[in-house]
Amino acid sequence: MAAFATLQVPRPRRPSLQRYHTDHSFQAQTPASQLRRNQEAQHGVGLQNLYIGVAVVEHELGELEVGFASHDGTYSVDFAAYSLTRGSSGTSTPRSGYNTPRSGYSTPRLPATLPEYEDRPTAFANWLIERISTYQSEHLYKFIGAGLTKKVVELSPQLPSRLWLELDIVPVVLKESNGKPHADKNRSVALTVDESADKMARKCVTLFGPGHQPRLFVEYRGHVAVDVDGRAQITSLQDYPKTVGERTWQATLKYAESLKKNNVRIAFFNSTPQGGGVALMRHALIRFFRLLDLKVDWYVPRPKPAVFRITKNNHNILQGVAEADLRTTSDQFSTLDQWCLENASRDWTSDGGALLSPSQDGAHVVIVDDPQMPSLVKIAKEIDPNRPVIFRSHIQVRADLADQEGTPTSEVWNWVWNNVKQADVFISHPVREFVPKNVDFEKVGYMPATTDWLDGLNKNMSKRDNRYYLHEFDTECFKAGMRTLSESRKYIVQIARFDPAKGIPDVLASYAEFRRNYMKDVPIDIVPQLVIAGHGAIDDPDATRIYEETITSIEEKYSDIKSDIVVMRLGPTDQILNALMSEAHVALQLSTREGFEVKVSEAVHKGKPIIATKAGGIPLQVEHGKSGFLVEPGDYKTVAKHLHTLFTDAGAYGRMSDYAKKHVSDEVSTIGNALCWLFLADKLSQIYIGKDKEDSGLEKIKPNSAWINDMAREAADLPYEEGESRLPRMAKLDLSAPVNQ
Amino acid sequence: MAAFATLQVPRPRRPSLQRYHTDHSFQAQTPASQLRRNQEAQHGVGLQNLYIGVAVVEHELGELEVGFASHDGTYSVDFAAYSLTRGSSGTSTPRSGYNTPRSGYSTPRLPATLPEYEDRPTAFANWLIERISTYQSEHLYKFIGAGLTKKVVELSPQLPSRLWLELDIVPVVLKESNGKPHADKNRSVALTVDESADKMARKCVTLFGPGHQPRLFVEYRGHVAVDVDGRAQITSLQDYPKTVGERTWQATLKYAESLKKNNVRIAFFNSTPQGGGVALMRHALIRFFRLLDLKVDWYVPRPKPAVFRITKNNHNILQGVAEADLRTTSDQFSTLDQWCLENASRDWTSDGGALLSPSQDGAHVVIVDDPQMPSLVKIAKEIDPNRPVIFRSHIQVRADLADQEGTPTSEVWNWVWNNVKQADVFISHPVREFVPKNVDFEKVGYMPATTDWLDGLNKNMSKRDNRYYLHEFDTECFKAGMRTLSESRKYIVQIARFDPAKGIPDVLASYAEFRRNYMKDVPIDIVPQLVIAGHGAIDDPDATRIYEETITSIEEKYSDIKSDIVVMRLGPTDQILNALMSEAHVALQLSTREGFEVKVSEAVHKGKPIIATKAGGIPLQVEHGKSGFLVEPGDYKTVAKHLHTLFTDAGAYGRMSDYAKKHVSDEVSTIGNALCWLFLADKLSQIYIGKDKEDSGLEKIKPNSAWINDMAREAADLPYEEGESRLPRMAKLDLSAPVNQ
Repeated sequence: MAAFATLQVPRPRRPSLQRYHTDHSFQAQTPASQLRRNQEAQHGVGLQNLYIGVAVVEHELGELEVGFASHDGTYSVDFAAYSLTRGSSGTSTPRSGYNTPRSGYSTPRLPATLPEYEDRPTAFANWLIERISTYQSEHLYKFIGAGLTKKVVELSPQLPSRLWLELDIVPVVLKESNGKPHADKNRSVALTVDESADKMARKCVTLFGPGHQPRLFVEYRGHVAVDVDGRAQITSLQDYPKTVGERTWQATLKYAESLKKNNVRIAFFNSTPQGGGVALMRHALIRFFRLLDLKVDWYVPRPKPAVFRITKNNHNILQGVAEADLRTTSDQFSTLDQWCLENASRDWTSDGGALLSPSQDGAHVVIVDDPQMPSLVKIAKEIDPNRPVIFRSHIQVRADLADQEGTPTSEVWNWVWNNVKQADVFISHPVREFVPKNVDFEKVGYMPATTDWLDGLNKNMSKRDNRYYLHEFDTECFKAGMRTLSESRKYIVQIARFDPAKGIPDVLASYAEFRRNYMKDVPIDIVPQLVIAGHGAIDDPDATRIYEETITSIEEKYSDIKSDIVVMRLGPTDQILNALMSEAHVALQLSTREGFEVKVSEAVHKGKPIIATKAGGIPLQVEHGKSGFLVEPGDYKTVAKHLHTLFTDAGAYGRMSDYAKKHVSDEVSTIGNALCWLFLADKLSQIYIGKDKEDSGLEKIKPNSAWINDMAREAADLPYEEGESRLPRMAKLDLSAPVNQ
Repeated sequence: MAAFATLQVPRPRRPSLQRYHTDHSFQAQTPASQLRRNQEAQHGVGLQNLYIGVAVVEHELGELEVGFASHDGTYSVDFAAYSLTRGSSGTSTPRSGYNTPRSGYSTPRLPATLPEYEDRPTAFANWLIERISTYQSEHLYKFIGAGLTKKVVELSPQLPSRLWLELDIVPVVLKESNGKPHADKNRSVALTVDESADKMARKCVTLFGPGHQPRLFVEYRGHVAVDVDGRAQITSLQDYPKTVGERTWQATLKYAESLKKNNVRIAFFNSTPQGGGVALMRHALIRFFRLLDLKVDWYVPRPKPAVFRITKNNHNILQGVAEADLRTTSDQFSTLDQWCLENASRDWTSDGGALLSPSQDGAHVVIVDDPQMPSLVKIAKEIDPNRPVIFRSHIQVRADLADQEGTPTSEVWNWVWNNVKQADVFISHPVREFVPKNVDFEKVGYMPATTDWLDGLNKNMSKRDNRYYLHEFDTECFKAGMRTLSESRKYIVQIARFDPAKGIPDVLASYAEFRRNYMKDVPIDIVPQLVIAGHGAIDDPDATRIYEETITSIEEKYSDIKSDIVVMRLGPTDQILNALMSEAHVALQLSTREGFEVKVSEAVHKGKPIIATKAGGIPLQVEHGKSGFLVEPGDYKTVAKHLHTLFTDAGAYGRMSDYAKKHVSDEVSTIGNALCWLFLADKLSQIYIGKDKEDSGLEKIKPNSAWINDMAREAADLPYEEGESRLPRMAKLDLSAPVNQ
């Protein structure tokens, strides 16, 4: 490495087009007292949110002129420009790469053995990452987004995903032209590298909304343009294989190749482009499909508040959590059907629409992932009865109530079912109890909810970023008038919505039992705290009620320990939840009733031993005594006992944490999810394309209550092998096993 | 008023086009514990930032269907729809207006004597303000922006400015069409009122940047499209007359009418569209001119970071605050001239450019308000030597250094002067010492810096909003790791940049003297605190140094009182500074060297007795012993004595506060500023248009070091009368007068 640092190159002559350019370092200075304040705190105090723009000009002999500009969302605040010359070229010495004569930055990550040709992009990306990272930490900055010119990404293709995965900066790749349609465009003067970087910073800012979140783009026809319409390139294809096992990856590629070869078009439909599990999964899925270059599109209807109220009620009725006398009227059902029809006619069944038959350039496979628009299944089948349609029921339907005639649940369910019964495959969470009995069981296949190991909720963040987000959490608490976490003490976390089924009273009871029985003689500065946090759904009256009950209960029943309990409804920043989980000592998930709750796998994946209840799909995700503990809902005393173990037996904790990290099934990840959808789409479309259209021809895919994942792996000739982590196919677990020793 | 509340109207039949519509109240619920927490706090704890969309459909018989949708920047969170029917129509009873049968909202502000025709817009605006205000306070919401359809504004023209002035919500008026160019637009279905409101909320959000600030729009040719390109209609013309005296207002209208009649086009040029005093004044000025329907445009060059560094140095050199050995090189001067020339050629002297002569549709009057682009004056004069050009020197030039040959200041000044000497009028701050001697004094006219009484910095805000912004201030402190204000104690404030000339060491010394000598036996819970705050210019090494010196000095010299001193560099939110000033007991401005510092007038305008130094233009703004106290720079002991008076003599305090509110000269407001510019533009353009082009013809306007304001008032036949507040024309004040008793 010293080779790079010491390499001296002559100062390049300035190319004449860069008249104004002089090498220039960042000028901003950060007060020493603030740096000190930040270093002394355990949470990341005092960081400033900025955006950065990066541009590059390539000159003869490979000289690169690089510009950086930082922007605080309102003003441009600083800039720097560097000339990078080849360290050496054409020699056998493996020291090609870039360095900058004045700043002395070297490229420490560059493996010395890479052949020169491959070196350059890596060396350049290394240098950029290093430069931005150093600039950040010298100045207490936290860059939210980076605007990169296409040229920057061409010269360092890994840069965008490395910005996201290493520095937690959202990269957006932008065109350099100003894009304003004007007659006399040809008068425009080429921008110099500093102007270009400044422009990238300013354009980057416009793609972020209040609260520093990238904007959601929903285009014409309700097409969801994920990741700022492909500009936020937070992952690259090569990041994915390492998140799953080799066989999962190979099987996925197999179906992807087949679909690509056959030019198959897949269209997903659901009712909202953001908020909630379906949208979260879908963004990650489409991001991955785009990297595979597959023709997969995602559509949502035009937002209509008045309809969402009805659908929200239906949702609650299906789950059996609505007020007993709440029923959906036939008018309301008509309203929903009408709304669905209107959206379909305007956007999806008109010329160029995705619901048209494939011969009219519609999709080959239609997937409806929402009980709010079940009539889309019917509409799709009316247009082309043979074209495969998959319906996914992502709600933990109270099948017992749906099966009972005359209940509000059965009324809603029958409406759903009448609309979707023509679907070729019916996907459910892998819990038998969620499937009402009028469903044709031959069509039922199981798929778990999934999560994404590379997105903001789960990616591994640096200590600096975790500290930053914990202070963001503190700040949200302060702003809300809530107590803040003591930085020096450990904490237990339950991350979940404020939902009646999430067992929050049991969380409090468990913590109190732990505090009062196990921690009563322990000095307070080493007693763990409790955090209960979740994204806030402020339009949800249930959430308000549960939040309120939690606060009241703490005041009344737990006032002795209340100063150590932090209860927060949080904004939409995924990384705050990520940091809260990453820095927690133990996670809880004490739901009394549950769907699948992939949050449990997220905790396990981070190596956090979790104490969770045997509810819904939870027991599928935790190996009792190995990756965590399973308890009966309501059994707070046992929870307290396990908490005690996890806080006092470091050996057991370490073993569980290690085991957890290594035993998360690929099935709960984006790739596992992609595998299932690609398998279904590939098989169904092959049958459809290959068959006489008069025959329905879909008999060959009858899951018969199988797990789609198993079908996909077997059909790819890559069945499960000994030692692969797989969700248990029977929800029957041995809970009597001793605790990991 | 009871007439409206009790008026019962039959429920209107639903018009058939509103198939989905049912009256619908907001559903969101706010936990009682949070409401309580907010009520108990003196600062506005726990408010949530939201955006709101408002849409309306008008049916037969004047029935209005109104939709509201709220949005948290990421998700739509709530909505409501109401039917409003005419209370009564065609009768002589003056009770027309709107009420909603179910919600019971009445229109309490509607004067019962207004004729019916005029009632309707007011009644509707009253109802909307009431509804939004109630929704906000019931839910601990703080709306940042409101997206309004054009129809809403057509039905209640006062609504936008009332939202801004009464509820501190930025109104943006939006088209309803989705604006996406698509072939099959004609297939689009008319939106229902809830869909439309939701869309307004979503579109509104896109116009705000990170940090909840409205976005800056700079268009083609560097045209600054103020107020989100006219969509943020925060003021209406009728709001202005009450901010100034009748004679100022009449004189202003006189020139406006003349300019309008003669179709005069005015173009302002300066280097940055935001940040700093010039931009702040310019936004307010253009906003007002737009309401007057005048042809005034504002242009800025393309941002170029490398140039800004040179200009910043020039700025410091002109003010004599740069390092002694810093000089601008001839290369750098060339770079600036070249940059100016390129921007001019591309955007302003090419076809359709504002610098072309009026016969080619260029401006009739050119105003260059920036020493960074002095060569624009030369360029304008090359194009048309007769067309009037005004140069404003807004810097407190160290004329003594500029006059001294060989100094860096004289080099920069001579470069400026050589470029601007052809200007017809040379405007300066009203301080003789800022004008170097090579300036032609016949051309010199004085204009003070001005501020806007209706913008975010100065408008009167409700107690609720002041509380909200003080908690925002607390939150910024918390985030930065700074101490927070104790809510229950009074405070002294100095609002200023962290600049070496702002006298911050004297602020600390004065406060310490006050604490140690006058407050030493006073119980701490009634001892005042000290706040030193300003917008942070993080690229300014000076600011960093001064901030750091302040912190160090507090640690080392004032550790006994440090827990009561809050020092903050703040983000760009004007209202935080407004609230800090509004809720302060006393303001300080202890500059050791000053330009005009209109912040002093802002304090006086809010009725805050200010203790300020006799530096630059400050003594023009404070009447010693009446609206505040003037002290010699550095005289901290006298400051402490005055602080003691203001905290202990409630009578004196009250008299000074009352006097201050009523004795702010119109000259320091947007209207005063507009009057000066309009007068100059009107007179100069009349001479230009009317004269033989061969004669320079501009001799008639020779300010000869007069105040432009006086010239404008006299030429309008509205000279100053006895009792009008006017800045003293001689900077000679009687400081020996007794303190207001």
